[in-house]
Amino acid sequence: MDLAYDGTHFSGWASQPGRRTVQQTVEQAWGVLLRDLAPTTTVGGRTDAGVHARASVVHLDIPLRQWQALPGRSTRSPEQAALRRLAGVLPEDIVVRSVRVAPAGFDARFSALHRRYSYRLNDRPESADPLRRHDTVHLKRPVDELRMNEAARALLGLRDFAAFCRKRAGATTTRTLLRFEVVRDPDGVVVAHLEADAFCHSMVRSLVGAVVPVGEGRREPAWPAEVMRAGARNPGVTVMPAHGLCLEQIVYPPESELAARAQTTRSRRDGLEGRSI
Amino acid sequence: MDLAYDGTHFSGWASQPGRRTVQQTVEQAWGVLLRDLAPTTTVGGRTDAGVHARASVVHLDIPLRQWQALPGRSTRSPEQAALRRLAGVLPEDIVVRSVRVAPAGFDARFSALHRRYSYRLNDRPESADPLRRHDTVHLKRPVDELRMNEAARALLGLRDFAAFCRKRAGATTTRTLLRFEVVRDPDGVVVAHLEADAFCHSMVRSLVGAVVPVGEGRREPAWPAEVMRAGARNPGVTVMPAHGLCLEQIVYPPESELAARAQTTRSRRDGLEGRSI
Repeated sequence: MDLAYDGTHFSGWASQPGRRTVQQTVEQAWGVLLRDLAPTTTVGGRTDAGVHARASVVHLDIPLRQWQALPGRSTRSPEQAALRRLAGVLPEDIVVRSVRVAPAGFDARFSALHRRYSYRLNDRPESADPLRRHDTVHLKRPVDELRMNEAARALLGLRDFAAFCRKRAGATTTRTLLRFEVVRDPDGVVVAHLEADAFCHSMVRSLVGAVVPVGEGRREPAWPAEVMRAGARNPGVTVMPAHGLCLEQIVYPPESELAARAQTTRSRRDGLEGRSI
Repeated sequence: MDLAYDGTHFSGWASQPGRRTVQQTVEQAWGVLLRDLAPTTTVGGRTDAGVHARASVVHLDIPLRQWQALPGRSTRSPEQAALRRLAGVLPEDIVVRSVRVAPAGFDARFSALHRRYSYRLNDRPESADPLRRHDTVHLKRPVDELRMNEAARALLGLRDFAAFCRKRAGATTTRTLLRFEVVRDPDGVVVAHLEADAFCHSMVRSLVGAVVPVGEGRREPAWPAEVMRAGARNPGVTVMPAHGLCLEQIVYPPESELAARAQTTRSRRDGLEGRSI
């Protein structure tokens, strides 16, 4: 299933006892549809508290009999019935955009090739849009997005991003950053677009936090790459607030390569997973 | 002052006892800044409960001494001081985008030449964005935006819009509709853009409600113009929900014509005012 959510009122994706999370909410909705215990879901991009998603991808296993029973007495397909009934059960801050039978070998987490995120920054009080305050971070100083973009470009490629990752024992911090582009959109909002095979914890927000001081003129465009090469977290890098961040896309290989991709990713067992933010 | 607000949690612009309105909130904020009673504001486009604004225009009269005292001990101009201090006092669903001394003869309401609104509709569950649910109305059926646009075009010009206005004794319902265009934006959202010298009460929402059944194929493109010519409210026209509507712009003439425009508008005394929605 393809899923969008407003992360404002969720404690992130992953289930946590006593917290409102996207995972629990979605699993409970499926439990209602299937008249059964809530099934377990697997997501292609876990998000932290307050982070949004416009196109997350989730898979779950459903017994064929339950799947076929979804339309009830209607003439809908199980896919259409699931889409319509989930819309009726889910709160308005989660939208299921599509439901379909996964191709053989598909795993939402391990089959993914890369993830794309956006981060929205507003540096002009005169163009602040209160309707977008839930997904846009306000900066106190104006930034030069061309300087930010120059700094961002220098971080691309296969690198060790330890300087921008929260440490996790036994997990690699080597990632391939495919895109890190900073542009000002027609409304005057500065948007950072980032894409990588996977991101480690807090990585997107740290990368954006590394180029903001460059945009403000407090650091040189070469500075974020120097921080990266130093390989240790730098107090000059702010981990940016969650609400500017949105998971925009998870990219999968063609169907014929899904199973092989999942096997490759799993065999690395090194933390190269959907964990993002 | 130029003002943007998220109308979700306001009972509209105009002050009402016991209700949270944009006008009261803005006037109280100015009272705090001026250390005085809340001054009275005049707006170029009043909005109903739940309607948003991206660029409303408001004027108020401030004694010169109070205006000059705004910067306090800072080196800021009164304009900069007002902008910064209002940001500190106002809630996050109101943003003041600019503050400046009005040109001679300016009246936010009576000097206005025309008002522009947008109305956002989503007819595709698969492209619904939960982050935009506060300013986008969900349609149950898919619409053909080209048919809607054809129907909209037939309503342009100087007309009696009585069929789309809430009745008000002694007020004219004749307006000049300068723009009524329906387009699908790159995200798949259908956006109606409307511009007129002024709108009477519920007019924008009724006009959009008249073209939606055309888009759904339940009415012919000529139908809204027939309803208009009949001159009476038609039960087939739904007044669309408030939260899809946003005041986008208020257009004023060049400075040299402001006073003359205000005098012309005032002398008509026929309800051709900022009243919108």
